[in-house]
Amino acid sequence: MSELLFDTIDNTSRRIAEKDLSPVELTKLTIERIQQVEPALNAFITVLEEQALEQAKMLEKEAQQGNIRSPLHGVPIAVKDMVQTKDILTTGGSKILENWVPDEDAPVVRNLKEAGAIIIGKANLHEFAMGATTENPHYGSTRNPWNQKYIPGGSSGGSAVATAAGMAFGAVGTDTAGSIRLPAAMCGTAGIKPTYDLVSREGSLPFSWSLDHVGPMTRTIKDSALMLEAMIGSKEPKSAFNELEDLKGIKLGFYEPYMYSGIDPDVKSVVEKAFQQMESLGAEINPIELPFIDSALEGLKTIAQSEVVAYHEPLLKKHGDLYGDDLKYRFQYGRDISATAYINAQRVRKKFIQSTLTQMKEIDALIGPTNVQPPFEIGTMVPEQAISNMFVLGKTPLANILGFPALSVACGFTRDKFPVGLQIIGKPFSDHRIMEISNCYERSESWTAALKENQNYLQLNH
Amino acid sequence: MSELLFDTIDNTSRRIAEKDLSPVELTKLTIERIQQVEPALNAFITVLEEQALEQAKMLEKEAQQGNIRSPLHGVPIAVKDMVQTKDILTTGGSKILENWVPDEDAPVVRNLKEAGAIIIGKANLHEFAMGATTENPHYGSTRNPWNQKYIPGGSSGGSAVATAAGMAFGAVGTDTAGSIRLPAAMCGTAGIKPTYDLVSREGSLPFSWSLDHVGPMTRTIKDSALMLEAMIGSKEPKSAFNELEDLKGIKLGFYEPYMYSGIDPDVKSVVEKAFQQMESLGAEINPIELPFIDSALEGLKTIAQSEVVAYHEPLLKKHGDLYGDDLKYRFQYGRDISATAYINAQRVRKKFIQSTLTQMKEIDALIGPTNVQPPFEIGTMVPEQAISNMFVLGKTPLANILGFPALSVACGFTRDKFPVGLQIIGKPFSDHRIMEISNCYERSESWTAALKENQNYLQLNH
Repeated sequence: MSELLFDTIDNTSRRIAEKDLSPVELTKLTIERIQQVEPALNAFITVLEEQALEQAKMLEKEAQQGNIRSPLHGVPIAVKDMVQTKDILTTGGSKILENWVPDEDAPVVRNLKEAGAIIIGKANLHEFAMGATTENPHYGSTRNPWNQKYIPGGSSGGSAVATAAGMAFGAVGTDTAGSIRLPAAMCGTAGIKPTYDLVSREGSLPFSWSLDHVGPMTRTIKDSALMLEAMIGSKEPKSAFNELEDLKGIKLGFYEPYMYSGIDPDVKSVVEKAFQQMESLGAEINPIELPFIDSALEGLKTIAQSEVVAYHEPLLKKHGDLYGDDLKYRFQYGRDISATAYINAQRVRKKFIQSTLTQMKEIDALIGPTNVQPPFEIGTMVPEQAISNMFVLGKTPLANILGFPALSVACGFTRDKFPVGLQIIGKPFSDHRIMEISNCYERSESWTAALKENQNYLQLNH
Repeated sequence: MSELLFDTIDNTSRRIAEKDLSPVELTKLTIERIQQVEPALNAFITVLEEQALEQAKMLEKEAQQGNIRSPLHGVPIAVKDMVQTKDILTTGGSKILENWVPDEDAPVVRNLKEAGAIIIGKANLHEFAMGATTENPHYGSTRNPWNQKYIPGGSSGGSAVATAAGMAFGAVGTDTAGSIRLPAAMCGTAGIKPTYDLVSREGSLPFSWSLDHVGPMTRTIKDSALMLEAMIGSKEPKSAFNELEDLKGIKLGFYEPYMYSGIDPDVKSVVEKAFQQMESLGAEINPIELPFIDSALEGLKTIAQSEVVAYHEPLLKKHGDLYGDDLKYRFQYGRDISATAYINAQRVRKKFIQSTLTQMKEIDALIGPTNVQPPFEIGTMVPEQAISNMFVLGKTPLANILGFPALSVACGFTRDKFPVGLQIIGKPFSDHRIMEISNCYERSESWTAALKENQNYLQLNH
């Protein structure tokens, strides 16, 4: 296993720009890595060997001519199979779309390609992104690289695993209640759900329009920042990413009744240490109130389950038997919701957003755990857990009902060697700010060294 | 009856500015007129004699000092009792709110007062604005001044009648499926439903958030333009209202399958004459297609009935028996709508807006009748007609599902001497443009003379 494959996007693209690293060689190494570990992890639905090498050759030629498109130039990236790709199978993790080859790239994929990213494959996911485990009945379960008997989290489990296990330097994920942040936390990577609509959702199969987000998953926060800029595709001069020296003056709010409810003691002690580390860097963490949070989170369930049925209803009529059991359970639940309940959920949401903005007036961001439980064993979920799983495993749905930016940064390991994620939730369009805060924390932590020590976990583990 | 009371806002405020007319005298005359005709018409729930005279005295003093706030300075205006007024009973036409005295003016009322308008009273309406007839079971039916056995249209029936019968120079109305334009047409006045959200809906009791609009009702289109500016309350320099010399170069689209379906032959011949008059002024009227219109209009019913139940549900639990029979029928209908149906209606709506914008690319506005039936007799409606009435009587709901600006301008009389309205529907934020077009038409028509001849209709008629 090459060390190269675990370097950051930042370093890798710098070496490519300096002609110290060949995109073609890097792509070949990545493909070898995939051939080696993919049978054990099942992170991909489609691997794009030929196309990736084609792209790599073209980008290598450009690099040799000194033409570097962006900090993603020549870097292999995976795309969740929820997002459509031109001339490449896009299944949504479903049986229904097992033969769908779109005519167009989603704008986010187009932007990544224009930035010089090499699309290395389409990552496995929970069927239609509707679940927290990535146990896919049609394409097999994706497995956690830290212990392959366990779920990687979901729904963007394939994206997280590809990134964590050196099969890609980053991946596109989608997040409706935590589908980027939960697997990022459980696999020891970073992931950001940007402010609602900051990244185009066009060409990404919908789960729930009101709550869907598209965002980057990488091994470091700084890499997420680089990838996010490419995904947005802004042509304007980009604001510099500041590496903060410390967190002096940073004010963080902590709402314990939500953030610590249902938390595993082992996970909690990891998170508490991370809080102390933030404070030792100069951040202030103070209690905060979040009125209406319970009804807002109930509202999220109502909104998501109503919208998902509205989208799937025509498919259900034709292909109802082709869905997995947990999805069938969801649809049943969604069909019984009244218009009034849906509208009231949207009204509660509005009120909650207003009140949270007021509560956050004097602070930079909210802080808490990403996951409150370690992963559970593959095959132990029952369909009735379909909707509650994300709420039991993580504290991620809060940021979807708000639409505020939220990220997960790795913050340590449980005693059983499962990674834990620290979550930071910012105010609308403060995406850059929360990445700077978490990047400062990330650089200070010795656990990234621990990750390096554990890089051979895959060889040991299967 | 004083001629003064039927003059335009434009002339009236000019005379006040020139100290040729006293706001106090004008207000006294208006109150006399109300005392004279209100018993026969029932246009008001509350008449504000004292407060109006107070306001008049203050504004008169300002006028004497040469301080004129706007073209509404010293002009008596009515406010639909759907819109809240500080320290003044605001019933929404309901029994439930029969004692509600708000602490605050709605922004639209505050803006009108700041522009110097004198609030003369709170106008009667269909209960909670949910109907097309203004047959109010709690405050009595408002009666059409052209024949008092007949409905004035609704739900802003009191606003239309107060304006038509010289009890106010204009009135605030609200419009969810036609509640400004239908009574304006049936009472021979002008009324505009502005572009969605152009006028603040804050402080106006909601019917259906997605479809509710607040707008002016006056005797001429130019007066509506003056009143609309005051209601928006913009502090920026206002764009001049251009009195077009003719309609050369104006392109109008006509979608006959909708606009003429269910039309009364007598009404139709009035509308056709108006079309000819528009053409003789230079306008081009051409056929246009409006794909998806039928499902979009069905969607409006779904959206409106779902949202209305969401708002009223807590009241229904406590005061269910205090609603009129037609409202009870509506609630029953709304409760049975599923979240999926509501969401799909909003999706159809989006598609319809896009396709209509495409269809309207080469034209200035759509044209058609406002009402396709003359008013019917008071007391002949059954509750089951509650939802369909607006669709049977008028072609107004189209502009609510679109959110585009739409106005009604009086265009003649049926053989039975009921006024008919011509409707013009513009593209988003072309409010000013459609008022200029209709103002040109209005100035050209001899029927305004007919109205003057008929000014004594009230004395003849009761």
